[in-house]
Amino acid sequence: MSTRAFGARVQRNIDPQLLRGEGSFVDDIPLAGALHVAFVRSPFARARINAIDISAAAAHPGVAAVYTCDTIGELDREMPLLIPHPSMKDARTQRPLARGDAYYVGQTVAMVVAVDRYTAEDAAALVDVDYDPLDVEIELEKAILDEAPLVHETHPNNVAAHFVQVSGHPDKAIAGAEHVTRVKVRVDRSTAAPMECRAVAATFDRVTGELTVWDGTQAPISVRGGLASILKLDEDKVRVIAPHVGGGFGQKVLLFYPDELLVPYAAMQLGRPVKYIEDRRENFVGSSQERTQIHTIELYAKKTGEVVALRDSFLHDTGAFIPYGIAIAQVASTSIAGPYRIPNIWVEFTAVYTPTVPITPYRGCGRPQACFAIERAMDQLADELGLDRFEIRRRNLIADAEFPVLRDGLLFADGLAVSLDSGQYGKALEMLAERLDVDNFAAEQEKARREGKHLGLGMAFYVEGTGLGPYEGGHIKIHPITGKVYVNTGLTSQGQGHDTVFAQIVADQLGVKVEDVILVEGDTKAFDWGVATFASRAAVVSGNAIHKSALIVRQKTLTAAANMLEADIGDIELRDGAAWVKGTDRAVPLAAIATATNPLRYAFNEAAKAATQFAPASRHDGPALAEGQHPGLEATDYYSPACATWAYGVHGAILEVDPELCSVKVKRYVCIHDCGNMINPMIVEGQVMGGIAQGIGGAMYERIEFDSDGNLVNANFVDFLVPYATEVPQVEILHLETPSPLNPLGVKGVGEAGCIPVGAVIASGVEDALRPFGAGRFHQVPLTPSMIHAALAAA
Amino acid sequence: MSTRAFGARVQRNIDPQLLRGEGSFVDDIPLAGALHVAFVRSPFARARINAIDISAAAAHPGVAAVYTCDTIGELDREMPLLIPHPSMKDARTQRPLARGDAYYVGQTVAMVVAVDRYTAEDAAALVDVDYDPLDVEIELEKAILDEAPLVHETHPNNVAAHFVQVSGHPDKAIAGAEHVTRVKVRVDRSTAAPMECRAVAATFDRVTGELTVWDGTQAPISVRGGLASILKLDEDKVRVIAPHVGGGFGQKVLLFYPDELLVPYAAMQLGRPVKYIEDRRENFVGSSQERTQIHTIELYAKKTGEVVALRDSFLHDTGAFIPYGIAIAQVASTSIAGPYRIPNIWVEFTAVYTPTVPITPYRGCGRPQACFAIERAMDQLADELGLDRFEIRRRNLIADAEFPVLRDGLLFADGLAVSLDSGQYGKALEMLAERLDVDNFAAEQEKARREGKHLGLGMAFYVEGTGLGPYEGGHIKIHPITGKVYVNTGLTSQGQGHDTVFAQIVADQLGVKVEDVILVEGDTKAFDWGVATFASRAAVVSGNAIHKSALIVRQKTLTAAANMLEADIGDIELRDGAAWVKGTDRAVPLAAIATATNPLRYAFNEAAKAATQFAPASRHDGPALAEGQHPGLEATDYYSPACATWAYGVHGAILEVDPELCSVKVKRYVCIHDCGNMINPMIVEGQVMGGIAQGIGGAMYERIEFDSDGNLVNANFVDFLVPYATEVPQVEILHLETPSPLNPLGVKGVGEAGCIPVGAVIASGVEDALRPFGAGRFHQVPLTPSMIHAALAAA
Repeated sequence: MSTRAFGARVQRNIDPQLLRGEGSFVDDIPLAGALHVAFVRSPFARARINAIDISAAAAHPGVAAVYTCDTIGELDREMPLLIPHPSMKDARTQRPLARGDAYYVGQTVAMVVAVDRYTAEDAAALVDVDYDPLDVEIELEKAILDEAPLVHETHPNNVAAHFVQVSGHPDKAIAGAEHVTRVKVRVDRSTAAPMECRAVAATFDRVTGELTVWDGTQAPISVRGGLASILKLDEDKVRVIAPHVGGGFGQKVLLFYPDELLVPYAAMQLGRPVKYIEDRRENFVGSSQERTQIHTIELYAKKTGEVVALRDSFLHDTGAFIPYGIAIAQVASTSIAGPYRIPNIWVEFTAVYTPTVPITPYRGCGRPQACFAIERAMDQLADELGLDRFEIRRRNLIADAEFPVLRDGLLFADGLAVSLDSGQYGKALEMLAERLDVDNFAAEQEKARREGKHLGLGMAFYVEGTGLGPYEGGHIKIHPITGKVYVNTGLTSQGQGHDTVFAQIVADQLGVKVEDVILVEGDTKAFDWGVATFASRAAVVSGNAIHKSALIVRQKTLTAAANMLEADIGDIELRDGAAWVKGTDRAVPLAAIATATNPLRYAFNEAAKAATQFAPASRHDGPALAEGQHPGLEATDYYSPACATWAYGVHGAILEVDPELCSVKVKRYVCIHDCGNMINPMIVEGQVMGGIAQGIGGAMYERIEFDSDGNLVNANFVDFLVPYATEVPQVEILHLETPSPLNPLGVKGVGEAGCIPVGAVIASGVEDALRPFGAGRFHQVPLTPSMIHAALAAA
Repeated sequence: MSTRAFGARVQRNIDPQLLRGEGSFVDDIPLAGALHVAFVRSPFARARINAIDISAAAAHPGVAAVYTCDTIGELDREMPLLIPHPSMKDARTQRPLARGDAYYVGQTVAMVVAVDRYTAEDAAALVDVDYDPLDVEIELEKAILDEAPLVHETHPNNVAAHFVQVSGHPDKAIAGAEHVTRVKVRVDRSTAAPMECRAVAATFDRVTGELTVWDGTQAPISVRGGLASILKLDEDKVRVIAPHVGGGFGQKVLLFYPDELLVPYAAMQLGRPVKYIEDRRENFVGSSQERTQIHTIELYAKKTGEVVALRDSFLHDTGAFIPYGIAIAQVASTSIAGPYRIPNIWVEFTAVYTPTVPITPYRGCGRPQACFAIERAMDQLADELGLDRFEIRRRNLIADAEFPVLRDGLLFADGLAVSLDSGQYGKALEMLAERLDVDNFAAEQEKARREGKHLGLGMAFYVEGTGLGPYEGGHIKIHPITGKVYVNTGLTSQGQGHDTVFAQIVADQLGVKVEDVILVEGDTKAFDWGVATFASRAAVVSGNAIHKSALIVRQKTLTAAANMLEADIGDIELRDGAAWVKGTDRAVPLAAIATATNPLRYAFNEAAKAATQFAPASRHDGPALAEGQHPGLEATDYYSPACATWAYGVHGAILEVDPELCSVKVKRYVCIHDCGNMINPMIVEGQVMGGIAQGIGGAMYERIEFDSDGNLVNANFVDFLVPYATEVPQVEILHLETPSPLNPLGVKGVGEAGCIPVGAVIASGVEDALRPFGAGRFHQVPLTPSMIHAALAAA
């Protein structure tokens, strides 16, 4: 065999193309004669719409159409509730264009289609909407009070969902606990801020009845299914392509954003291509956000530190609508006990409507909040019991031999009870301690203080349920002409490197170079069974589906090669793009095998000539294909996980806090990470590093700010502080590889890992640095200089 | 079960669209900014090309490029020999653009690409080609003489191929024969004359590297494979679409016509869409033709009429090149004994190069010539032995109990020995005799003669090997939203009604309406395994593949329905678009089953709501898909025939010949036809009727005329006489259905049947009518008024 590709630090196939600017994003698709869209959006967080006068806009030169809720036919409906759940009564979702009321600043009220974007924007400004503004309450804790103005007037209150989950016997355990610590923490709202905003273009062929949609989505197959259903087309008549997409982070997986329905609808109505490219301000006010939760968490422990029970009650801000149901809050609930043994858990949440941009999962999806709560509580418990922060964790971490650990009663996002499958939690903790030289840190800290420098050590542990089902598929085909291997799956990529990692999986099985494996995904004409890219599931679910398909193609290839080479199948090996009789120089290229297994005459190329040497001279012995035999070297198979696999990690940092400037500088950042077997450590590190960068943003800089009227006041990159390279520390990443026992590749997901614990790490470190000042505890992120200043001032 | 669709006279699904002018042919594809092609073609049948000066053309305003053999890179090569055979030495195929020599009038010498066709034509006229004309010999029998000028100077003579096939022991049988009759017959050259000429358009996406080609071809998958190979692209990067195509008849299955390579090449080179629409004159001089053969056939018989041996030696005109190899001549050789028992056969042919339009199969493909030879010989034998024409056939037809009849030694186009699988030849003959009231015809004829009317009865029998392999496939999918069934196969249609007959096959198995089954073919993105539409193979090969796939989907549907309805699988029936518990009103629509078998949440439609009633509430019992289970209701399977199935028929006509005008009027035309089980008798009759119309053309009107310099002098519809509706008789079609034992559906092909015997019928009838004049025998088609005049004059 050649060197194994699985596990190698293979350069990403796609990078040269993207780095040279040769990517093809939605706005790059050439659509001759395309019309362009601008939206009229609500300037009020809550308002009654009395009338919409489109006459001036419609009369504006270059305008093709102006749509309101009255002129979009079947589309004038509430968009689907993607994940129903009994904890929600009367869940509210958005209409493509507002009917009667507006529910947040930025909601789409009318759509203008014109010859270019400039014209469309000018005409949008001419749409005259008569609003009556209504009272609003933006603040989460006030929004649940009886006196709060209702977001949805026909809904009895602002509670969108309420749910309690229990594992073990918390009441009993609480009654017998020797110590309790209570923490109230808050994580504020952020946004994914992908480099490319969202984008949709569509064209409709009246002759064939085919609708083609280019959508910067994470879920082309689901978009296809939904469009077909709502527009009453057969699925085969709708092709959805997600071309190159510049970042998703969950923001691009909602079904549907208004534009995703309205742009295809307009293309069908107007008989011309139609395009909408979201601008940055629209991404802030029109694309979904996440994070605001307020947890009150209690840990019940023995005096020796072992936690016997956990109680958590939290508020979850769902914005004006709840299209994703309770997914985020459910993930937070089920992640709340982290990596700890804690046998008794009671967790409750209330999801609350606020008249703000709707909430859907953003990288991490509830996990950063849960991690922030449990880890801040663990730190406090350690202090209260006089234990070191590492020590309290040593006493509570699940031991290797205890896996799998079932948290019966806590149902994860897949509807199954949480079951942590494997890990080496204790080893990870010691690796961090060793790497940070924790034993000597107190001395170092003391030395620095004497020099007027205030160092702090922060740390946090996390777990991440990954690889959600229900399933994905993989199709693999070896090409007859070039011997290249094409791979399809139902996912799509926004920068994750699918094309490289899936190629590595296949390359090993078929004995070809990684660069000769070409992934085609994100196109419903290429593969149309599957779900979407989200929830750190690609490597686990599509990866294993592709692996299974590769094994089938491998077997077909070996069988055909053995026949052509007149050797036993056991004597054949696949390497260097050919099948070889082991220990000899007799070989046949994969291209020739692919040619020969399609019983056709190819007279065109070298591969065919090679194949001809081996192909049977005549067919006197029966049909060209035996019963059940399929032509070529291809296969499709599926992988459906039994349940989630749980990755985990522990991060630690050495910070320096300047008490004058109230600034925080991250001097070292160490990540110990375990996502099972790594397909490509370089890509794993890229994912982790990117996650940490976004985590740094959420920990210290990024906060979506609404004023009391519900205006998003920092809807731009001047005021919303995405960290630059100067703010993101160098990260030392150390790997553990504890294979998942749940899937053939032994892999777990890694897409969200990096961002989860960063807030807890930073807060832990700042607290540690400012301990001499009596600055107290830090229980909110982003942790800003103002907060440090206030804490120091209060001390 | 609902009424069976298989066998019903279902109206063709596609007709309303086509009849309303809503078809989408290649020229209808909207390609913004497309460039257009005109060709510079040789005005000489043979010439040396000394120089090509493109400077004036290239400088013409609006010209994007002018290509010659020197500027087309990899394409400057001989095009593939599609079917090699040992009987050919040094077979010659054409280059896309002539290099050094021109070989027929109309050969492509240069290609001009310009902003529109007018400009391209103007510029083509400015291309200055310096030719030295060479001597030519057009006439087939002279072209094989030693003194004939060579078509290919480096080839030792004009013999492209020579092949002898022997079945039984002809020498011995001939030696013992009591009687011999010898006939020399000639069938002249015709052309398919499809309503739509050929057309190719292409566009290349530089970002994705994808080449899309719209080609009015019968073989999109093969075009895709060849283009990928020659242009060095992966097959997945080439999409070939055959949209609506206005008739093919074999003319559109050659790989490659120059334009089919050059147009995609130019699109890639120029970065713009490029389009070529063949005009009618170009279809005459640039697209392939068929038919010219001269047979000398001898029947060796007992005095009682039983033929004991057959000898046939024929010349086959292959034109200037032989891209299809000996396919036509081989089909003629192996069809030469027709439906007769004749146990000993010796058949030889010589394929001859002439400097004319190249020859490839045209509907019938050698069979009309073979039929003309054997049937004219049988008529003569009958006369010589004093037997009735029906009686001589009765004594020689294969009896029902004799099937299968192996003609060992005669290898058919699939490389296998001819084996006639089933039939009721004797019954067919008697049906014709009865229908034409043959017993009373002599009296009727005599009565007419007395009234000055010259009636003749003509008849001819034929067999047709159909359903050639190697294989085709079928993919079937039931749609989750609409319950409609989509069917894909590797073929493409030029008017055959695939979309209806394949739908009938599927409708029965899945219990849906025929109009709810939608066939998508002719698009390599929809299905890309298979061969092409030719050789009367679609119903047999794709039909059975689709049938096999339908059985799998049926089983999946029954299994899922039984689960949803909590019933035994044996108690489920599929009808009216739903699965029912037999004898109850409990049912679930197919759309709901398709939804439920894709383990996803669809919240969008009624079908989904119906499915939700049945879907399992949770997944606590394991993965969403069991190992080996695939989502949805779909399947792909293949059918690979063991050998050809043999259809047959017998035609008879009553003619009236006017000895003054020398005109022939067909008063009655009866066709007895057996293609096994009929999927749709109406479509079978349409196929037969269309074939007879083309047969009438070949029998009486259509003759490609070359002058002695090789100019095609009737390259238009004024001079080349395609029969109008006024010339085509009403045809009485009677069916026999003798199932083929070779395939599950019991079907045989019918695409070419109609045209095969018409020439023999007409000649037989004219001969019969003019017998009193002593006008002798008619051994050439088209049988023109001039020939009748000459025969009467000579009598």
